[in-house]
Amino acid sequence: MLHAVIMAGGSGTRFWPASRRHLPKQLLALATEIPLLRMTFERLGDLVPGNRVWVVTTAETAEATRNVLPELPPENILSEPMGRNTAACAGLAARAIRELDPEAVCIVLPADHVIGEEAQFRAAMAAGAEFVGREGGLLTFGVRPTRPETGYGYLELGPEHIREGEWSIHRLRRFVEKPDVDRARTYLESGGHLWNAGIFAWRATTLLDEIRRQIPELASGLDRIGKALGTAEFDAVLSEVYPSLPATSLDFGIMEGAERLWTVPVDFPWSDVGSWTELAERLAADASGNAVGGRVQAIDAGGNVLVSTGPVLSVVGVDELVVVATPDAVLVVPKDEAQRVKEVVEALREKGWDDVL
Amino acid sequence: MLHAVIMAGGSGTRFWPASRRHLPKQLLALATEIPLLRMTFERLGDLVPGNRVWVVTTAETAEATRNVLPELPPENILSEPMGRNTAACAGLAARAIRELDPEAVCIVLPADHVIGEEAQFRAAMAAGAEFVGREGGLLTFGVRPTRPETGYGYLELGPEHIREGEWSIHRLRRFVEKPDVDRARTYLESGGHLWNAGIFAWRATTLLDEIRRQIPELASGLDRIGKALGTAEFDAVLSEVYPSLPATSLDFGIMEGAERLWTVPVDFPWSDVGSWTELAERLAADASGNAVGGRVQAIDAGGNVLVSTGPVLSVVGVDELVVVATPDAVLVVPKDEAQRVKEVVEALREKGWDDVL
Repeated sequence: MLHAVIMAGGSGTRFWPASRRHLPKQLLALATEIPLLRMTFERLGDLVPGNRVWVVTTAETAEATRNVLPELPPENILSEPMGRNTAACAGLAARAIRELDPEAVCIVLPADHVIGEEAQFRAAMAAGAEFVGREGGLLTFGVRPTRPETGYGYLELGPEHIREGEWSIHRLRRFVEKPDVDRARTYLESGGHLWNAGIFAWRATTLLDEIRRQIPELASGLDRIGKALGTAEFDAVLSEVYPSLPATSLDFGIMEGAERLWTVPVDFPWSDVGSWTELAERLAADASGNAVGGRVQAIDAGGNVLVSTGPVLSVVGVDELVVVATPDAVLVVPKDEAQRVKEVVEALREKGWDDVL
Repeated sequence: MLHAVIMAGGSGTRFWPASRRHLPKQLLALATEIPLLRMTFERLGDLVPGNRVWVVTTAETAEATRNVLPELPPENILSEPMGRNTAACAGLAARAIRELDPEAVCIVLPADHVIGEEAQFRAAMAAGAEFVGREGGLLTFGVRPTRPETGYGYLELGPEHIREGEWSIHRLRRFVEKPDVDRARTYLESGGHLWNAGIFAWRATTLLDEIRRQIPELASGLDRIGKALGTAEFDAVLSEVYPSLPATSLDFGIMEGAERLWTVPVDFPWSDVGSWTELAERLAADASGNAVGGRVQAIDAGGNVLVSTGPVLSVVGVDELVVVATPDAVLVVPKDEAQRVKEVVEALREKGWDDVL
């Protein structure tokens, strides 16, 4: 049967101060009416029933996650004692799912992306899942580029393997790190590369077999955790074992070295909304080209990203800034340095001002 | 006897968002450990006993004023139902004081200035008060300029009239509006002009006589209020009459046309701390030349004024800005446009966002 695994373990530093340890991006409703996690869940529609939707989250956000998805069976929310990157996260989910459903096929989705044309999204997920359920292997969905984006990783398309209805299943040649703008332009023109959206499909057993073959230490840790599933010791075993698991990403730890690797080009609008400036495109714009969210007032100011989660934010005579106001923390940074929010969070941590992290 | 009148009716827009209708500048402790109003009170020292100190404040801030000055007799706090400028304010105080002490001499002080060398300050006040108590007339204390300041009004010195100990009492020729920088430089070099610090001395009866002569409408209003003093009707009469009083300043409504006008040059350090940039000089400075107050973190940022009354304020890569953060309102404006905070407050009022005014 088809299961969906939503990876919701994000730490949320890129949207500080709106996001916090206890309120990472997927739990925010920044440019949306409902939190991104809930949008991700609702986007599944009738593709997967709620009792086969699994969320892997962190201990710090488990309660908030339950509040956002009250219809989920509590046992479907797996809570990482600490983040160990995506291979462990997806492995944990696969181990739990296989226990209930040895034939399970999983689609694996980040909790905090924005996706449009949801019917196309569901149709692509169904086709990819159908394919791996039948033929095995690990499959990545790849978004056809619409601009020479340098902020995403890419997938290099191999030859077409088969057509699955309107979908073309390709071999996946390799994962490509974020390119410079010239290469991104080449990728866009050639049509031979896709954006790596971090959305996957596989049989639970296929992933677990690949983990055993490539990262045996991870496999044996997952085995110990798996044996405790459904017992009174589960939480204790998870807390003991999980922090010692190797921390590596699905892409480079498992996919790159996997025996059979597929990709499906998709066209649905997709964004990982990875920074304040990317979010800006989804906010309302005022007459001066400021992207605004919340109670904001701009006088003789243009091209700014102005977001408040509560306070009244007033700017006068400034341009091209990101200003984010919350009741207990405020950030001001030029738009073209917006990624430096990570430095801010790091510096706050060093200062010991953990109350606002 | 000598009385002191502290004018504490400021509306506090220039320090928004730290200052509010209910928390104007004089009640803030921005670069000081205690509120400016309390500093003004304590600065009087043994010059005037507490029961002869009067504070004219607004209905909105009367309670906060009592909390800041708990040792003041409650009847010494006069609460304006609405602001009617300084002539009405000083007139109200003079009328109340004369009722108790027909021979009273008053020194009249703004509540929200910063003054150093307090012994010199008290000696100057004593000398000015002694002089007007004996000779009558209206006296203004004038601060000898130390820089070509364009943000203050000036007093043009007339000939010396008499020496009063170490103090030189001059005739005051006229009040001068804020000059441009060339004239300010001339004033500084010639020594013939003083900064108008808004600190006055007179007999209560002298001020009331001048009001009667120059603004009879104000005088008759004050008479009606004065007759209700000490009766159960006082509050009702004040509420009815005060809002209809002519609103004019002491300087231009009374002093300019007064029969005998004096000034005493003084040298004590004085600032009206009229803007965020002026306040900056009184804040702590970090290694990059940011003036900082509160929990502030600046990365690759210099020459800013960064003030928080609570939230953690983080800035990266910005220069020469004023950023003020409070739990419910945030302001960002270039330092050289800091006076535009008034536009912000006006725009917020028009928007109806009164909760943060």
